[in-house]
Amino acid sequence: MSVCPFDHPVLGGLLGDEEVNGYFSAEAEVKAMLAFEAALASAEAKVGLIPDEAATAIVDAISTFEPDIDRLRIAVSVDGVVVPELVRQLRAAVGGKMASHIHFGATSQDVIDTGLMLRLKPVLAVVEQRLAVFLNALGNLAKRDGEKTLMAATRMQPAILIHAGDRIESWRGPAERNLERLRAWMMDGLALQFGGAAGTLDKLGDKANAVCAALASELGLTDRPQWHSQRDRIAELASVLSLISGSLGKFGQDVALMALSGNEIELAAGGGSSAMPHKQNPVSAEVLVTLARFNATQLAGMHGALVHEQERSGAAWTLEWMILPQMIVATAAGTRLATELVANIRRLGHEG
Amino acid sequence: MSVCPFDHPVLGGLLGDEEVNGYFSAEAEVKAMLAFEAALASAEAKVGLIPDEAATAIVDAISTFEPDIDRLRIAVSVDGVVVPELVRQLRAAVGGKMASHIHFGATSQDVIDTGLMLRLKPVLAVVEQRLAVFLNALGNLAKRDGEKTLMAATRMQPAILIHAGDRIESWRGPAERNLERLRAWMMDGLALQFGGAAGTLDKLGDKANAVCAALASELGLTDRPQWHSQRDRIAELASVLSLISGSLGKFGQDVALMALSGNEIELAAGGGSSAMPHKQNPVSAEVLVTLARFNATQLAGMHGALVHEQERSGAAWTLEWMILPQMIVATAAGTRLATELVANIRRLGHEG
Amino acid sequence: MSVCPFDHPVLGGLLGDEEVNGYFSAEAEVKAMLAFEAALASAEAKVGLIPDEAATAIVDAISTFEPDIDRLRIAVSVDGVVVPELVRQLRAAVGGKMASHIHFGATSQDVIDTGLMLRLKPVLAVVEQRLAVFLNALGNLAKRDGEKTLMAATRMQPAILIHAGDRIESWRGPAERNLERLRAWMMDGLALQFGGAAGTLDKLGDKANAVCAALASELGLTDRPQWHSQRDRIAELASVLSLISGSLGKFGQDVALMALSGNEIELAAGGGSSAMPHKQNPVSAEVLVTLARFNATQLAGMHGALVHEQERSGAAWTLEWMILPQMIVATAAGTRLATELVANIRRLGHEG
Amino acid sequence: MSVCPFDHPVLGGLLGDEEVNGYFSAEAEVKAMLAFEAALASAEAKVGLIPDEAATAIVDAISTFEPDIDRLRIAVSVDGVVVPELVRQLRAAVGGKMASHIHFGATSQDVIDTGLMLRLKPVLAVVEQRLAVFLNALGNLAKRDGEKTLMAATRMQPAILIHAGDRIESWRGPAERNLERLRAWMMDGLALQFGGAAGTLDKLGDKANAVCAALASELGLTDRPQWHSQRDRIAELASVLSLISGSLGKFGQDVALMALSGNEIELAAGGGSSAMPHKQNPVSAEVLVTLARFNATQLAGMHGALVHEQERSGAAWTLEWMILPQMIVATAAGTRLATELVANIRRLGHEG
Repeated sequence: MSVCPFDHPVLGGLLGDEEVNGYFSAEAEVKAMLAFEAALASAEAKVGLIPDEAATAIVDAISTFEPDIDRLRIAVSVDGVVVPELVRQLRAAVGGKMASHIHFGATSQDVIDTGLMLRLKPVLAVVEQRLAVFLNALGNLAKRDGEKTLMAATRMQPAILIHAGDRIESWRGPAERNLERLRAWMMDGLALQFGGAAGTLDKLGDKANAVCAALASELGLTDRPQWHSQRDRIAELASVLSLISGSLGKFGQDVALMALSGNEIELAAGGGSSAMPHKQNPVSAEVLVTLARFNATQLAGMHGALVHEQERSGAAWTLEWMILPQMIVATAAGTRLATELVANIRRLGHEG
Repeated sequence: MSVCPFDHPVLGGLLGDEEVNGYFSAEAEVKAMLAFEAALASAEAKVGLIPDEAATAIVDAISTFEPDIDRLRIAVSVDGVVVPELVRQLRAAVGGKMASHIHFGATSQDVIDTGLMLRLKPVLAVVEQRLAVFLNALGNLAKRDGEKTLMAATRMQPAILIHAGDRIESWRGPAERNLERLRAWMMDGLALQFGGAAGTLDKLGDKANAVCAALASELGLTDRPQWHSQRDRIAELASVLSLISGSLGKFGQDVALMALSGNEIELAAGGGSSAMPHKQNPVSAEVLVTLARFNATQLAGMHGALVHEQERSGAAWTLEWMILPQMIVATAAGTRLATELVANIRRLGHEG
Repeated sequence: MSVCPFDHPVLGGLLGDEEVNGYFSAEAEVKAMLAFEAALASAEAKVGLIPDEAATAIVDAISTFEPDIDRLRIAVSVDGVVVPELVRQLRAAVGGKMASHIHFGATSQDVIDTGLMLRLKPVLAVVEQRLAVFLNALGNLAKRDGEKTLMAATRMQPAILIHAGDRIESWRGPAERNLERLRAWMMDGLALQFGGAAGTLDKLGDKANAVCAALASELGLTDRPQWHSQRDRIAELASVLSLISGSLGKFGQDVALMALSGNEIELAAGGGSSAMPHKQNPVSAEVLVTLARFNATQLAGMHGALVHEQERSGAAWTLEWMILPQMIVATAAGTRLATELVANIRRLGHEG
Repeated sequence: MSVCPFDHPVLGGLLGDEEVNGYFSAEAEVKAMLAFEAALASAEAKVGLIPDEAATAIVDAISTFEPDIDRLRIAVSVDGVVVPELVRQLRAAVGGKMASHIHFGATSQDVIDTGLMLRLKPVLAVVEQRLAVFLNALGNLAKRDGEKTLMAATRMQPAILIHAGDRIESWRGPAERNLERLRAWMMDGLALQFGGAAGTLDKLGDKANAVCAALASELGLTDRPQWHSQRDRIAELASVLSLISGSLGKFGQDVALMALSGNEIELAAGGGSSAMPHKQNPVSAEVLVTLARFNATQLAGMHGALVHEQERSGAAWTLEWMILPQMIVATAAGTRLATELVANIRRLGHEG
C-alpha cells in the first residue's frame, strides 16, 4: 500500500527512509505498547497493587504474544483506538484469573502516548546522529572549498563576491542550532505518559507515584505527571522537526539555484530524465525543498491540535497520529538526502 | 509499513479506505503508467510516427510486463521520478529494434500526470457516489426526525428551539453543493497530460494534435493542451476535497457536541474505552473533525505548489505527490464514516 | 496603525492596494451594515411586518447616522460582534416608538455576512477587471515576444529551446481559468444572508420569504436560504483567491529566476538597494511569490473554519474575519503588481 | 484602515491589543530603524571608520528627523524595502559632506531586522509579563476552586469525576512551560543583525568585530554574527508564539464547552446578542480558540520562509513581514483575553 510516499514501494526510495520507517510499522507500534503493559504489570506488582504472579504471567505472555492484526484493524474502526482490543487479546492470551490484572489503572492514551515515546527515543537518535554527520560534512566542505569565491545573490540578483565558506556558514549555523534544539527536546520531552481514565490515576490511590517512578525507570523515560491533554511538548517537537527540514530546504534551494545558474557548483551525480538523457537533475536538492515545504505545511496541523479539549480529544489526538510520524520520516529523509548532497558537491565556487 | 495512517494495518481500518487505497498502490500506479505507454504507442502508430509493428510489440509486451519494483525504487532515489527506469525496463522487455519506439516524444511528467488522471477517474467516482448516498441518508433522516425539536446553539450557548430538520439542512446543503463541485471538476479536470520534454511536443512535428486526440480518446480523458506547469486544476481539486471533508467535519462536530451534551441525539453505536467500559465514544463523529482539519492543513501545501517554476518544478511537483493522494483517501474515508454515522443516529431531537 | 502590511503607511505602498483597502475600512463596513438595516426596514414595511412610518424613520435616520466608533470598539470587546451596540446606537438615533422596529427578526450574523457580501461585490469586480487587464497584457506580450526563443528549464536545469510564447502560455492559461472561476463565484456566491436568531426567521412567520425576496432585490444580492453555518461558499471564494495569487506567483517566480540567470529577460525597472546602487531588484516578481505563499497559508485557516459548529460558531466565524479580507487584498495587490510587471518586461527571450 | 483585525478601529477592541499594537506602527518602526543608524554612526566613529563629527551630525539629525512617510510609501513600492529612501531622506537631513557617512557598510536588512529586534524586546516583555499574570491567576483559581468536582470528559463523553484543580493543571502546565520557552528565546534570540551587502561586512575590514560589539552594546542586543539568511530563530519565535496561543486555545475551548453544557462553570460576564437578549456568550473563550487557530495557520507560512534562498530572499523575507507582527499581536491579545477570562470565572466545578 502506498497512499503516502514514505511507505510507497517505489517513491519510498526517495522520500521514505528505510532506517526510520520501521519504527512506525504496526509491528513496532504494538511492540512498544506491549512493552508498556509489561512494565506496568511489573511496576504494579512491585508496589503490591497486583500479585507478583500476575506480573509474571503477564510479562511471560507478552514475551510470546502475537496479536491478531485483522481484529485490531476491525476494532480500531469502532473504538477509534487500538488499545481496548489489544488488551482484550492480551487478556485472552494470559487467561485465567491473572488476566484481569492487565492494564490495571491505565487507559488507551497511556499506552499509545508512551508507546510513541518509546519509539521516538531511538528514532530521534537517528535524526540527531545524521544531523551531526551533516554538520561534519559541511565542515569538511568548508575546509576544502571555503576559500573559493562565489557571487553572492540578494533578491534574486548578483550582488558582490563572497567566499564559498560564507554561504556554507548559512547552512551550517542553523543545522548546529537545530541539533542543539533536538538534543534539548530529547532531554526534556521523552516522558512517560500515565494518568488512567481521566488523568488522575484514580485507581492507584497512594501508590500512584511509586508506580510512575518504577514504570518510567523500567522504560527509560522521564517520570512526569501525565500530559494527556497538554500537547505542548508534542507540538514543540513538530516545530523542531520543521526547523530542521526548513533549514535543509534552504541548503537544497541554494544548490538547485547554483545548478541552474551554471558554473558555481559541480555536482557528482544527478537524476536522469526520460526525455533528455543529457540532463543531470539536482534531485536531492529539489527534494530538500519539497520536504521543507511539506513539514512547514504539516506544522499548522500539529499546532492546531493544541486545542485538545477537555481530558482527551479524540479529534485532536487522532490528527497528531496522522501527521507526526510523517513529519519525523520527512525530517529523517531530509538529513539523509542532505548528507548525500554534500558528498556530491565536487566543487563549490571558483578559484579566487 | 505504516508511516501514514491510511496504509496502516491497524489504523487504516479507521482512517484508510479499502475501496480507495488500492488506487494509490504502486501496482495501480505502474499499471496506469503502462496504460499511457501502450496508448501512446498505438496513437503514434496510427498517425505514422512509429511503425505499426512497434506499437503491436509494445502493447503486447505491456500486457504481460512485470516491472522490477526494487530497481524502480533504487532508480527513483536517483532520478526523482520512476519513469526513466520504467521505460528502461520496458525497452528491455520489448527488446530489439522496436524498443526504441517506446515513450517516443514523451517525458516523465506525461506518464505520471496522465497516470494520476487515469486513477482519479474511478476514485473520484467512488467519492461522488458516496456523497450521493450520504445526501440520500440525510434526506431520510430529515423525513424521520426533521419535525422533532432541538435547542439551537449559537456561540456555544443555547439559543431558541428549532427543528431537527433545520440542523440537518446545514449538513445537507453544503454536501449537495460539494457534490455539484466534484461533478463539475470531473467534467473539466480529467484531462490528458502530454507535452514532451518541455511541453512543446517538439518531436511530434505536425502530428502532435492528432496524437493527442487519439491518446485522449483511447484513455478516456479530455484532450487538452499540456498543463505541465499549470497546476491550477490540481489545486482546485484539492480545494474541492477539502470543502467536502470540511463540511463533513461540521456534521461530525455537531454530532459530537450533541453526544457530549446529552439527550438530543441517540447513537446506535460508539467506540469502547479501555478504562471505562460504560462509555460510548462518538468515534466517527470525532474522526470527521480530524479529517476536516487534516485536509484543511494539507490544502496549504497543495496551493503552495502552484508556484511551479519554469517548465517543470521537481520541488513543487513532488510536494503534490506527497499530499494529494492522502487528501483523496481522507475525503473518501470521510464520506464512508459520515454515511455510517447517519445510519447510527437512532434519534435526533425531541418530540415536539 | 500597521500591524498588518496592507494597512501599513509605508509597506502598504507595496503590499496593500489603495483601490481595494477602502472596502475593508471600518467606515465601509458600517456603511454596508447600515445598508442592510435600511433595506430590512423597507422590506419589512412593504410586507406589513413593521409600520411604513417606522421604515421611513429608520431609513431617514440611517441616511445621516454617524456611529460612535469608540463605543463600538468597546462593545465589540465584550459582545464579540459589533451589531448589538450598532443597533443600540441606531435605536437611539431613531428614537421614540419607531426605534423598536429596527433590526426586527434579524441577528448579528445577518448584518455582518450581508454587509460583507455588499462589499465583496465591488471589490471582486476590481479583481476581475484587473485579471482581465493582466490577461490582455500577456496577450500583447505574446504578440510582441512570443516568437523569440527561450531555454526551457525543467527540474532546475536547462532543457531544450522553446518559444517565449510557450512560457507566456503557462502564465496565461491559469489566469484565464481563474477569471472564469472568479466570475462563476460572483454569479453564484454573492447571496443575501438572512436567518434571524438561529436561522429559522422565527419572528417573520409566513412573511419570511417575501421579506427575503425584497431584501435581496433591494441590496442587489441573490436571494438564498440563510447560510449562517454553511460556510462552503466562503471557503470556496478563499480557494479561488488563492488560485489567482498562486498562479501569479508562478509568473513572478519565473521572472525572478530569469532575472537571476541573466539575459533571457530585460526589465524596465527594479528596486534599488541601500548597499549596492548597481542592482535592479525584481521586486514585484518576488512579491508575487510572497503573496502566493501568503494566500496558500491562509487558505488552511479558511478551510479549517468550515468546522462551524451548531447554528453559529463564534470561534470559526471570527477566524474568517481575521483572514478573508487579507486574502482579498493580497489577491488584488497581486493583480496590480502582475500587470505592472508585464508592462516592465522590455524583452522576453532571444531573437531566433 | 482595517484590512486586518488588529488595526481595525472596531474589531481591534477585541482582537487587537492597544499596548502592543503601537510597537508595529510605522512610527515605531522608523524610530527603531533610526536608532540603528544612530548607533551605527556612533560605533563606526568609535573605531575610527567614520569621523567623530559625522557621527555627531548623524545622531543630531536623527534626534529631530521626521521622515516623509508618503515618499517612503512610494519608494517601498519600487524598492521593496523602505531603507534606501529612508537613508536618502536622512542624508538630505544631515546634508553636506557628513551625509555620506550615514549607513556606512550596512544594508537594508541590517536596519530592518535589527529594528525588529529592538521592538521585539519590549513587546515580548509584555507577553512574558502577561503570561506570568495569567499563571498567577490560574494559581488563585486553583486555590479557590481546585477541590471542587468536575465531570471529566474524554472523547466528548462524560468519564469520571475529577477535581477542578485537575483541569486547571492542564491549562497551567503548558502556560508555565511556554513562559520558560519565551524567556529562553528572549535570552537567546534578541540579537543584532549586521552584515552589510551580502553578509560579510566587506566594507569594514578588520574593524568589523569592534563595530558589531559596540553596536550591539549600544542597542542592548546580543552580539552575534549576521543571520541574514539564517531565519531559524525567527521561525522558532513563531513556534513559541503559536505554542502560547495554542495552549490558551485549549483553555478557551474547555471554558466554552463548559459554558455550553451548563452548570459546571459560572461566568461573570459574557457578550450580548442582537437577537437574543437573554444570552451570555462566552466571547473571550471562543476568541482564544480563534487566536489559537489563527497562529497555528500562520506558523506554516513562517516555517515556509525558512527556505530563504541565497544571501537574501525578497520573497521569503517579505512573507515574514506579513505574518510575524500579526502572530505577536494575536499572542498578546490572547494573554490579555485569557487573564480576563480567568477573572470572569465565578465558579468552576461543583461542591463535593
